[in-house]
Amino acid sequence: MKYVYSFKEGNKDMKEILGGKGANLAEMTSIGLPVPQGFTVTTEACCKYYEDDEVLSSDIINQIDEKLKELERISGKVFGGRENPLLLSVRSGARISMPGMMDTILNLGINDEIAESFSKKINNERFVYDSYRRFIQMYADVVMNFPKSSFEGLFDEVKRIKNIENDTDLTTEDLKEIIVLYKEEYFKLAKSKFPEDVKVQLIEAIKAVFRSWNNKRAITYRKLNDISNDWGTAVNIQEMVYGNSGDKSGTGVAFTRNPSTGEKKLYGEYLINAQGEDVVAGIRTPLPIETLKDTMEEVYNQFVEICNILEEHYKDMQDMEFTIENKKLYMLQTRSGKRTCKAAIKIAVDMVNENMITKEEALLRVNPKDLDQLLHETFDQDSLKSAKVIAEGLKASPGAAVGKIYFTANDVIKAHEKGEKDIILVRLETSPEDIDGMNIAHGILTVRGGMTSHAAVVARGMGKCCVSGCSSIIIDEIKKELITQDKTVYHEGDYISLDGSTGKVYGTKIKTVAPEISGDFETFMKYADEFRKLGVRCNADTVKDAMEARKFGSEGIGLCRTEHMFFDETRIFNFRKMIVADTLEKRKEALEAILPYQREDFEGLFRVMDGYTVTIRFLDPPLHEFLPHTDEEIRKLASSLNVSFESLKARVSSLKEFNPMMGHRGCRLAITYPEIARMQTRAVIEAIINVANEGIKVIPEIMIPLIGDVNELKYVKNIVCTEADSIIENSGSNIKYHIGTMIEIPRAIILADKIAEEAEFFSFGTNDLTQLGYGFSRDDSSKFLNDYYDKKIFEFDPFSRIDQEGIGEFMKMAVEKARSVRSDIKLGICGEHGGEPSSVCFCHDIGLTYVSCSPYRIPIARLAAAQAAIRENVNK
Amino acid sequence: MKYVYSFKEGNKDMKEILGGKGANLAEMTSIGLPVPQGFTVTTEACCKYYEDDEVLSSDIINQIDEKLKELERISGKVFGGRENPLLLSVRSGARISMPGMMDTILNLGINDEIAESFSKKINNERFVYDSYRRFIQMYADVVMNFPKSSFEGLFDEVKRIKNIENDTDLTTEDLKEIIVLYKEEYFKLAKSKFPEDVKVQLIEAIKAVFRSWNNKRAITYRKLNDISNDWGTAVNIQEMVYGNSGDKSGTGVAFTRNPSTGEKKLYGEYLINAQGEDVVAGIRTPLPIETLKDTMEEVYNQFVEICNILEEHYKDMQDMEFTIENKKLYMLQTRSGKRTCKAAIKIAVDMVNENMITKEEALLRVNPKDLDQLLHETFDQDSLKSAKVIAEGLKASPGAAVGKIYFTANDVIKAHEKGEKDIILVRLETSPEDIDGMNIAHGILTVRGGMTSHAAVVARGMGKCCVSGCSSIIIDEIKKELITQDKTVYHEGDYISLDGSTGKVYGTKIKTVAPEISGDFETFMKYADEFRKLGVRCNADTVKDAMEARKFGSEGIGLCRTEHMFFDETRIFNFRKMIVADTLEKRKEALEAILPYQREDFEGLFRVMDGYTVTIRFLDPPLHEFLPHTDEEIRKLASSLNVSFESLKARVSSLKEFNPMMGHRGCRLAITYPEIARMQTRAVIEAIINVANEGIKVIPEIMIPLIGDVNELKYVKNIVCTEADSIIENSGSNIKYHIGTMIEIPRAIILADKIAEEAEFFSFGTNDLTQLGYGFSRDDSSKFLNDYYDKKIFEFDPFSRIDQEGIGEFMKMAVEKARSVRSDIKLGICGEHGGEPSSVCFCHDIGLTYVSCSPYRIPIARLAAAQAAIRENVNK
Repeated sequence: MKYVYSFKEGNKDMKEILGGKGANLAEMTSIGLPVPQGFTVTTEACCKYYEDDEVLSSDIINQIDEKLKELERISGKVFGGRENPLLLSVRSGARISMPGMMDTILNLGINDEIAESFSKKINNERFVYDSYRRFIQMYADVVMNFPKSSFEGLFDEVKRIKNIENDTDLTTEDLKEIIVLYKEEYFKLAKSKFPEDVKVQLIEAIKAVFRSWNNKRAITYRKLNDISNDWGTAVNIQEMVYGNSGDKSGTGVAFTRNPSTGEKKLYGEYLINAQGEDVVAGIRTPLPIETLKDTMEEVYNQFVEICNILEEHYKDMQDMEFTIENKKLYMLQTRSGKRTCKAAIKIAVDMVNENMITKEEALLRVNPKDLDQLLHETFDQDSLKSAKVIAEGLKASPGAAVGKIYFTANDVIKAHEKGEKDIILVRLETSPEDIDGMNIAHGILTVRGGMTSHAAVVARGMGKCCVSGCSSIIIDEIKKELITQDKTVYHEGDYISLDGSTGKVYGTKIKTVAPEISGDFETFMKYADEFRKLGVRCNADTVKDAMEARKFGSEGIGLCRTEHMFFDETRIFNFRKMIVADTLEKRKEALEAILPYQREDFEGLFRVMDGYTVTIRFLDPPLHEFLPHTDEEIRKLASSLNVSFESLKARVSSLKEFNPMMGHRGCRLAITYPEIARMQTRAVIEAIINVANEGIKVIPEIMIPLIGDVNELKYVKNIVCTEADSIIENSGSNIKYHIGTMIEIPRAIILADKIAEEAEFFSFGTNDLTQLGYGFSRDDSSKFLNDYYDKKIFEFDPFSRIDQEGIGEFMKMAVEKARSVRSDIKLGICGEHGGEPSSVCFCHDIGLTYVSCSPYRIPIARLAAAQAAIRENVNK
Repeated sequence: MKYVYSFKEGNKDMKEILGGKGANLAEMTSIGLPVPQGFTVTTEACCKYYEDDEVLSSDIINQIDEKLKELERISGKVFGGRENPLLLSVRSGARISMPGMMDTILNLGINDEIAESFSKKINNERFVYDSYRRFIQMYADVVMNFPKSSFEGLFDEVKRIKNIENDTDLTTEDLKEIIVLYKEEYFKLAKSKFPEDVKVQLIEAIKAVFRSWNNKRAITYRKLNDISNDWGTAVNIQEMVYGNSGDKSGTGVAFTRNPSTGEKKLYGEYLINAQGEDVVAGIRTPLPIETLKDTMEEVYNQFVEICNILEEHYKDMQDMEFTIENKKLYMLQTRSGKRTCKAAIKIAVDMVNENMITKEEALLRVNPKDLDQLLHETFDQDSLKSAKVIAEGLKASPGAAVGKIYFTANDVIKAHEKGEKDIILVRLETSPEDIDGMNIAHGILTVRGGMTSHAAVVARGMGKCCVSGCSSIIIDEIKKELITQDKTVYHEGDYISLDGSTGKVYGTKIKTVAPEISGDFETFMKYADEFRKLGVRCNADTVKDAMEARKFGSEGIGLCRTEHMFFDETRIFNFRKMIVADTLEKRKEALEAILPYQREDFEGLFRVMDGYTVTIRFLDPPLHEFLPHTDEEIRKLASSLNVSFESLKARVSSLKEFNPMMGHRGCRLAITYPEIARMQTRAVIEAIINVANEGIKVIPEIMIPLIGDVNELKYVKNIVCTEADSIIENSGSNIKYHIGTMIEIPRAIILADKIAEEAEFFSFGTNDLTQLGYGFSRDDSSKFLNDYYDKKIFEFDPFSRIDQEGIGEFMKMAVEKARSVRSDIKLGICGEHGGEPSSVCFCHDIGLTYVSCSPYRIPIARLAAAQAAIRENVNK
C-alpha cells in the first residue's frame, strides 16, 4: 500500500487520497509553477492510523523516510543537518478544505545545535531564532496540546519588559531568551525535555495533524458542512521557505476574484517579514495585494501571471497562499476559493459570459444550500437613512443582522438557550473555539482581523453577516462593554445592527426587508429553470406567503394546510365551537360559520396562483391542538361558548391523546366527522367557481392526509365527490378538480398500488413518514438524537434530509407501485425535505413530478433540481 | 347469470352460492333422504340486491317464478291455489351458519280465501288458522319490522281473556279472532292492508331475508366470528310441512353426538304439534329425543338411521332439524353441528379412533380460537364442596363463571363500562338483541329455554359458561331481583357462581383453578405437535407464568420483558432512583442495587426452562412510565429518595413526552445510558453461569428492542458483548449467548438485511410494528376505530390479527432480506398476534421459526401451527 506520494507523483484529481492541498501542490508542480517541493502522507494513512489505535505503522514511517531522502536530494539540504538544514512545514489537508480547523507546524527540523550552526552559516541569526521560537510554540500547542496562553503569555511578558510593541522589533537576544523560557515552560508542562531529535519532531507532528482531524472544532465544522467523519486528513510535508527572513520576504493570501462580491479583480493581502500563521491569525493587519506592486514589482507581476494561469487551468476562482523569500515567489497552496453565495453566482454567470464554463458547469458551481444567504432579509433603505453609524469595519461577509450583543461564544450559547433569537457576537477576534457561538449568532463583529481572518472565512462559509477589523471600537471583555469612538457604551444585551455588505455598524435596531431575485441571481435562476425537470411548488397557507413564493418562482401550491387558516382570532371561536359540539347539528352550525372564511381564503390563494395548480390538504391535526388547556383558558372559552366549565373541561380532556401524532387526526377526522370534509369541499369548490368567473384558471387538488388504507380514501373521496359534484352541477359550471392523498403512513407504501387506483396524485409527507418510519416523535427525539450523533450512530438528522437508505426506499417502492397502476400519476413531496438540496436531488432521481417547500427555499429547490438533472445527464 | 337453483341442482360443496342450508338440503335430496322440495335464491342474488340499492331485479324474479312453477309440478300443489295451496317456508342460509341471527318466515302463501277453502279441504281448520296467524305474525315482524310486542301482546291478551295457558289450547275461533286483531294492528302500523297477494308475500319475504343480513345482531355476530360482510345470505324456499298439524306431528332438532360433551349418543329434543320456531324460541320446554321412541317408534328408528347415514356421509357430527307431519318424517336441515370445544376435541379424537377421519382431519376440525374455552378456570373442588347450590338448570355451555348479576344486556354493558369485570347476565330467556351483553358477560343464566335455545347456542359459540332452563328461580325484572325456591333474594350486583358443566348455580363467589391439559385434550395436542413445524414459546416474565407455560407445552421463552421485573414494590424504589439519577455515578449505584434482583429472576426463569431457549428483551418502555405523576406521589418519592420535591418534579416533567410510543425508549435508552444495558447483561450472564453450575442447560438470547438502524444494534451489541465476554472470561466458563433484535420499526424492514448481518435472530414485535405501520396509537385508536368498523373501512382489528396485506407484507420483506444474508437466522414473533390463529398460520406461511405468546394461548398456537402445516401439505 502506497501511503506517501511526492508532489511529482500526484495531480489535482487525487484529492481523495492526497487531500485538496496535496493534490493541488502536485498539480502546480506539474504545470511548472514555483512550489517548494515535498511529499504528502495520504488520507489512507490517516485512516490506518485510527484503525491501528493511533499508532503510525512502521510501513508508513519507512515510506516517509524514503520520501524524506528524496526531498534531501532535490533540495540539496539535509534534514537534521547543521549547516544547511532542511526545515519542513507540516500541514493538514483534507479532501474538502476545512480552513483553520486542523493544525499546522512550521519550521520543523530545528534544535539548539542546528539553530546555532545554521544561523552562522546564513548569517541571519535573528531569522533563525525567530523560526525556532515559532516552531517550539507551535509544537507545544499542536503536538503537546499545552495551553496557548502559557507560551503567548511568556512572549508578551518579554515584549512588555523590553517595552517592545511589534514582534519584528524583538532582537535575536530577546528571541533566544524567549526560547529558553519556552523550553523551561515545556519541561514544566511535559515533565520531559523538548525533543531535539528532528525525526521525533517530524513523526510526532504528523501524528498530531492526524489527531487534529478529530478535534472538537473540526468535528463541529464537518457536522455543519456535511463532511464525512471517515475521510481523514492527509499531511503535507514541504521544504520551508521563509517569509520571515527579512524585508524582502513576506507571505500572503489572495483570490483571483473578489470572494465577497465576485468582482473580477485580484483580491488579497500580505505581510512583510512574516510567516503564514501571522496572516491567518489576524494579529497584524496586512496590506492589500496591490501595494506589492510598489515594493516588489517583478514579484507582483509574476504573481498576477500565476493567478491567471491558475484560474485558466482550474476554470474557477482560486484562493492561493504564497510566500516571498528574498524576492523569490513561492506558491504554497491553491484551491477553489470559498466565496459568498452572491460572489459564487456572479462568478458563475461571469464565467459563462467569458465562455470559460458552460451553464451546466455554472449551475454545479453553486451549492444550493448557500442560496439561503441571498434569501434572507436586508435593511430597509428608508430606515437605514435615519440610522446612526457607530463604526465601520471590513465587509467580511454580506447580509444584514440585527441583535443583542454578547461578548463570548459561551454567552451567545447561554442567551440562545434562554430563548433569545437575535444575537450578535462581538469579539476582539474569533478563534476556532468560537465556532459553536458563531453558528448560533445572527451576525459577527470583530475588532481585529482582515478579510481572510478566521471570523471572515468562517462567517462567509456559514452565510452569516460579518464585519471584521472594526478597529475604531474598544471592547471591554471584563465589563462586557463595547465602546465607540465617541465614547458611547453598549452593554451586553443592547441592540446593534450590522451590514456585512457595507461594513457599517449601527447603534440601533433597523427594520429589514425581504430579499429579491434580480440581476445575476435572476440570470442564474433562469439557467436553473432551463435544465430542471422537477416542478417546484410552495407550501403556503396565506396570500402573503403565496405571493412571496410566486416572486421566488413557485409554480403553484403543493401544500395548503387548511388548519393554519383557523388560527385567526376571529375564526378560532367557531372552530372551537365545532370541536366541542356534542351533536351533529351544533357541529354543522359551527361549520356553516367557518365556511365563508375558508372559501374566501381559497379564493385569495387561487387568484395569486392563476394558471397553476393548488393542492389543498384537508384538516390534519388532532382536534385538541385547537383547544385551550389551562383551567383559566377553558373557563374563558366556556363562558363565550355558553357551556359549563365542567362540560368543556371534560370535552377537552376527552380529546387528549397519549400519542397524538398517531391519534385521531388526518383522514380519521373526516371519517368520524364527514361534515368537516363536506364543508371544506364546499369551500374549495365554491371558491374555484367564484374565481373562475373572474377568468382565473386554477386546478384545485384536494388532498386527503394520513391515508393508510384504500378504504379510508374511498370513503372520504366519496364524501368529497358527492358534495363537489352536486355543487358543480347546481352551479352549471364545468370546473374540474382532482383528488389525491398524502403518502405518509408506512402501510400506505405497501398498498400504494391499491391507493393509486383511487388517487389522482400522491404527495409524500416525509415529515410524518420519517417520524413513523423511524418511530421517532419529532417533538421528543431531540432528547436522544444528540447521543446518536455523538456516538456516530447517525450522521445526519433524518428530519432535515431524506434518509435515502430507509425512508427513501419506502418512497421508491411507493412510486413504483403507484406508476404500475396509474402511469401518469402526479407525484410530489411536501414535507420539509422538499427544500433541502440532497432530498430534492433524490426526488428527481426517483422520478417525482414536483417538490413543494416553504417560499424562501424555492430558489434552493430550483437549483437543486437543475443540478440533479445535469448530473443525471452527465452520468448517462 | 343463474340466481336460483332447485334442490336437485345443488350439492354440499356449493355453500358459497347456496349457503350452508341450501347446499345441504340439495345434498340430502341427492342421497335420497326425505326433504320437502324447493329451491334456493343464491348469495349472489343477495349481493346483487345490495348492489342494485335494495331492488330485486326482474331477472331474479323471473328465475324465482320458473322454479316456483317447477315446485308446483313436483308437489302437485299450487302457489296461491285455494284447495291444495302450496305453502312455503322462506329461510335464510349464509355460507357459514349464523344461528338465529337472520330471519325466517313460515307458512307463506296464505290469505283469507285460501285459509277458508284449504281448511275445508283438509278438514283441519284449527291447523290452517294456526299456520295463518303464525304467518301474519312473522311477516309483520320480519318483513315490516313492526315491534314483536304488539302482536305477542294481542296473542297473550286473547289467551288471558279466554283463560288459556297453552297455545295448543286455543280454539279455531280464538285463532280467527287473533287473525282479525293482527290484521287490524297491521293496518294501523302499516297504513295499508295485509297483502293478500301470495306473490307479493313471497317477494317481500325474500327481500326481508336479504335485508336481515345487515341487521344489527347479524353484523355483531359476524364481527365476533370473523365472517365477511360481503358474502350475503341465500334464501331457501321450500314446501311447508306441518309439525303443527296435530298430535302425530311435531318438530325438533337433534345432534348425532352430544354437542356439549362430545359423547357418542344421539342428542336432541322435539315438540309435538309445533312449528320450528317454537323449539328455537324456547317458549315451550321440549322433550328429549329418546321419548319419541315411545310415541312413534317407526319414525324414531327412521330418524336414527338417517342420523347414521348423515354422520357417515359428512364424516362429522351433524346438527339436524326435522319435522313430522302425520307420522311422516321430513329432514329440514343438516349441518355440521356447533359444539363446545371440549366436545369438538372428544369427537375428533373419537372419530380418529373409529377410523372415520385422519389425525390431520381431526386437527382441522377444531377452531384453535375455541381452545380458549378449555384454557380458562374451573371451580376449585374443595371450595365447591362447601358452596351452596341455590338452583339447577341445564348444562347449556360448560365452564365456570363467577360474577355480579345483572338483569338486562344494557345493565351488563353499563356495568362493564364502569369497570366491572366479573358479570353474569341473568334473563328469563335471551333473544338476539342481547348479543352484545352476552358477549361481555362471563356467564349466562336463563330461566326458560332448552339446550338448543338461543342462550345455549350463542353461549356455546362464544365459549361462554351458560346454565339455561333453570326454572326453579323467579326473576323480578322490575325490582331486579333473583328469587330462589327457598325465597332467598339476590339483588342486582350480588355475586353468584355458575357451573355450565353441571348446570349448578351457587349463591356465592367460588374459588376457581387454572385449567389443565389431560385426557382427550392431551391426545389432541399431541396430534398437533406431530404436524406443526413452528416452534411455540411463551411470553413470560415470572417463574409462575413460565411454569404455567411449560404445562401448556411451551418450548422456551420468546419474550421476557425485563421491565416487568421492576414493578415489584421493593425494586421499584431502586429503579426510580436510577431514573432520577442526575449523574452517572448515582445511576450506577442504583443499578448495582437492582442487579441481584434481576439476576435472581433470570436464574428462576432459566431453571424452569431447562433445555430450552430464553429470550430476554432489554429495557423497553419510556422511563417516565415508572415515575409517579401526581404532586403527592412525587412528594412521597422525593422524601424517600432524599431529593427535593422541586427537583424531582422537574425531573419527572423533563421525562414527559408528547408521543412516548415514539420517544425515548427501547434501544434508545441503552444508547443514552449504556450502563443500564451493562447491568442487564451482567444479570443475564451471571445468572446463566450460576444455573449452569446446577447442570441447567439454557441458551440465553439477548434481544435489543426498537432497532431502526444497524448502527444502533452495533453500538448496543458492542456494549453487551464487551461486558458479557469479560464476565465469561473471568468466570472461566464456556457458556454461549446470542444477540438479536426486535423488528418493530418500519425502517428496520427496509434495512433487515443490514441488521441481520449483526443479529443472530429477529423477533417481530407486531404490536409496535402495527402501531407505527398504521400510525395508530394503540391507546388512542379506539376513539375512531369503531367508526372504521361501522363504515366498513376495516373488517378487523389489526392489533388482534396480523394485517397480512400491509404489516404482513412488511414482515415478508424482512424475512426475505434477513435470510438473504443469514440463511439460518432464527425468526420469531412476540407481539400479541403470536397466539392468534390466523396470525400463527401467517407466521408459518412466511417461514418463521417460532411464535411466542402468553401462556394461556400456547395450545391455541400449537393447534394453529399444526393446521397451517397440514393445509400447506394439502395445497402442495
